Amino acid sequence: MSDHVYKKIQLVGSSKTSIEDAIHNAINTAAKSLHDLNWFEVVETRGNITDGKVDYFQVTIQVGFRLAG
Amino acid sequence: MSDHVYKKIQLVGSSKTSIEDAIHNAINTAAKSLHDLNWFEVVETRGNITDGKVDYFQVTIQVGFRLAG
Amino acid sequence: MSDHVYKKIQLVGSSKTSIEDAIHNAINTAAKSLHDLNWFEVVETRGNITDGKVDYFQVTIQVGFRLAG
Amino acid sequence: MSDHVYKKIQLVGSSKTSIEDAIHNAINTAAKSLHDLNWFEVVETRGNITDGKVDYFQVTIQVGFRLAG
Amino acid sequence: MSDHVYKKIQLVGSSKTSIEDAIHNAINTAAKSLHDLNWFEVVETRGNITDGKVDYFQVTIQVGFRLAG
Amino acid sequence: MSDHVYKKIQLVGSSKTSIEDAIHNAINTAAKSLHDLNWFEVVETRGNITDGKVDYFQVTIQVGFRLAG
Amino acid sequence: MSDHVYKKIQLVGSSKTSIEDAIHNAINTAAKSLHDLNWFEVVETRGNITDGKVDYFQVTIQVGFRLAG
Amino acid sequence: MSDHVYKKIQLVGSSKTSIEDAIHNAINTAAKSLHDLNWFEVVETRGNITDGKVDYFQVTIQVGFRLAG
Amino acid sequence: MSDHVYKKIQLVGSSKTSIEDAIHNAINTAAKSLHDLNWFEVVETRGNITDGKVDYFQVTIQVGFRLAG
Amino acid sequence: MSDHVYKKIQLVGSSKTSIEDAIHNAINTAAKSLHDLNWFEVVETRGNITDGKVDYFQVTIQVGFRLAG
Amino acid sequence: MSDHVYKKIQLVGSSKTSIEDAIHNAINTAAKSLHDLNWFEVVETRGNITDGKVDYFQVTIQVGFRLAG
Amino acid sequence: MSDHVYKKIQLVGSSKTSIEDAIHNAINTAAKSLHDLNWFEVVETRGNITDGKVDYFQVTIQVGFRLAG
Repeated sequence: MSDHVYKKIQLVGSSKTSIEDAIHNAINTAAKSLHDLNWFEVVETRGNITDGKVDYFQVTIQVGFRLAG
Repeated sequence: MSDHVYKKIQLVGSSKTSIEDAIHNAINTAAKSLHDLNWFEVVETRGNITDGKVDYFQVTIQVGFRLAG
Repeated sequence: MSDHVYKKIQLVGSSKTSIEDAIHNAINTAAKSLHDLNWFEVVETRGNITDGKVDYFQVTIQVGFRLAG
Repeated sequence: MSDHVYKKIQLVGSSKTSIEDAIHNAINTAAKSLHDLNWFEVVETRGNITDGKVDYFQVTIQVGFRLAG
Repeated sequence: MSDHVYKKIQLVGSSKTSIEDAIHNAINTAAKSLHDLNWFEVVETRGNITDGKVDYFQVTIQVGFRLAG
Repeated sequence: MSDHVYKKIQLVGSSKTSIEDAIHNAINTAAKSLHDLNWFEVVETRGNITDGKVDYFQVTIQVGFRLAG
Repeated sequence: MSDHVYKKIQLVGSSKTSIEDAIHNAINTAAKSLHDLNWFEVVETRGNITDGKVDYFQVTIQVGFRLAG
Repeated sequence: MSDHVYKKIQLVGSSKTSIEDAIHNAINTAAKSLHDLNWFEVVETRGNITDGKVDYFQVTIQVGFRLAG
Repeated sequence: MSDHVYKKIQLVGSSKTSIEDAIHNAINTAAKSLHDLNWFEVVETRGNITDGKVDYFQVTIQVGFRLAG
Repeated sequence: MSDHVYKKIQLVGSSKTSIEDAIHNAINTAAKSLHDLNWFEVVETRGNITDGKVDYFQVTIQVGFRLAG
Repeated sequence: MSDHVYKKIQLVGSSKTSIEDAIHNAINTAAKSLHDLNWFEVVETRGNITDGKVDYFQVTIQVGFRLAG
Repeated sequence: MSDHVYKKIQLVGSSKTSIEDAIHNAINTAAKSLHDLNWFEVVETRGNITDGKVDYFQVTIQVGFRLAG
């Protein structure tokens, strides 16, 4: 990695089932337009409540990817 | 939302199985006495260990709900 | 607990499936050499991405255990 | 103040015009049911965007009030 | 604790003598109306100065208590 | 929102008159090239001083917008 | 700026009308005794409540100014 | 307070006996040269250890005082 | 200190009487197995409540000690 | 600057020799595609270790640049 | 140190060459008017960019010095 | 890394010449007794001042290393 430069962008994924699934959704969307995704970091976990139940989880992540040298 | 006021309270839910389940438990309890629950934010995730294994997860969340105008 | 002293160490567990599993793995490893593990606190959640998908979750936790008096 | 105990609650006020107005709205609502409100602290400022413009500001505050001794 | 839900409230206690005493005062007041108080966490320590001397300490704590199931 | 992914970018707006106006300026600029702007969060408020007076306010915000699915 | 050294001091300004006005008041006072004020950063926004209404806003800022070389 | 401006300075007091005493020492020193001291906020608590025992506590506080208008 | 390396470990001490006593207890335990303890930093102060009263204070500290060169 | 809007992006640069060099590398890469770079802020400093030695430093920075009005 | 009181002030030094040099510059300036400087703590590292290159580093430090008893 | 567990310890290295050198010193000492050191994260940068000059830099880092499975 010593001669690479990475960019980190912040995404919010959501899922009705789990925190992990919300992360997967955010990364799947990023992977459509960005290559060389390398790692993610969870920044915030929150969610929406409807009728007294969790409707979906929303997870904000930072995604790091290599910039073309 | 522009003419509403919300209150945020802090709850700790627990579960033997998952972080999501601990969140569900906290919100289920809140929903018994509060209406118009709107969203939650995870503040802290921790848990208890017994005999070298996770006994239960404890998740502190803030729950936001609309105050009657 | 009033006459005990505890030590907290920081571990990073990983798992291909879930955040909870990464926590379990870190605690299982700690339990091999340390007794009286009492609680954990999640410090950071991140993970590795390969081919546009989450390869594994990495969860940093603090684990508290009682020191022999 | 030396013999008083205060409680702090967290409210989210909103306004289409300004941050100050969102704070006023939250405090006005609190004042309907609570007496002896003493001070507030801004915790977070955010807002909603519609059609490329700020629709309303949302300000989270902590409000401190004296508990009846 | 695995099947309980806890609520955390924020209180400010004060004392002319010590930080510990300010914590005691806040908890004593909470105990008049709330049962099953379990733990507290210090959030902030500050105080008032009069005539160049500490007049009283003000300690903000979070107090956790069990919600009736 | 449950099946959407959002991106958050960080902008700094400025204004000679108010914090709100600096936020408006940042969002107006973002709206020229981005659609589906949804919310903002204030990250930092600062400003420039000239001749002992505030010359302009600079407000750093995060702006969240929906990514085309 | 490359050969200058700056000092940052922390001030609390207040105003009955707005957050911006509280910032102006703090900077006006600083400008009476300090030259070469360059920038400010908002550290904390709070305020006093009287009779269920905001009595004044209190804004803590850091003010940076150049030290005479 | 609405027409006053306050300055906050950071001091470190120490004491062989208690945290409160370290705070008193810092404020006593400040009071020799500054009038109108109003409040303090604890920023950090640490200390020195000699021969396996606490030698003294060091408490960093911010002290707020009114600037002459 | 210029040619030394220090290690910091995190301990939780407790006491029924005071925050200072909880710090002493943690350091006394550390001193049984570690030499050259140099300083501590308070990380967190919390405690347990029983029957509406503080049962004991729990103070998390970091303890720094010199590693044998 | 009063009528400009800036964007901040987050980059990670690396270097085998120094923290400054890692910052230079990140900015050099950004400068290839972005004009009007104005300032940077260090967010995180970390690095990789191989065979018991620092292999390279990794510095995360935020880079601010002016958006075309 | 047990009977001393220290003051901490915040300075910003700059340098075209290195972070360390920016720290040296800030301390050199402080040493012209203050005696008994004891330690510094880095608060923030940032810098200015001109023509796509780092023009100078700006390092904000807190400097602690003993107050005359 | 997916089936490994890592431990993070906190070290303070010092150097009369540079921040990087202080990091190297801490890691060199750790490498004498620990294998499989993988990465470090800078937690705090501070230093000692003697006669108005930086005497040495002290850098606190977290060092991560793989635990034997």
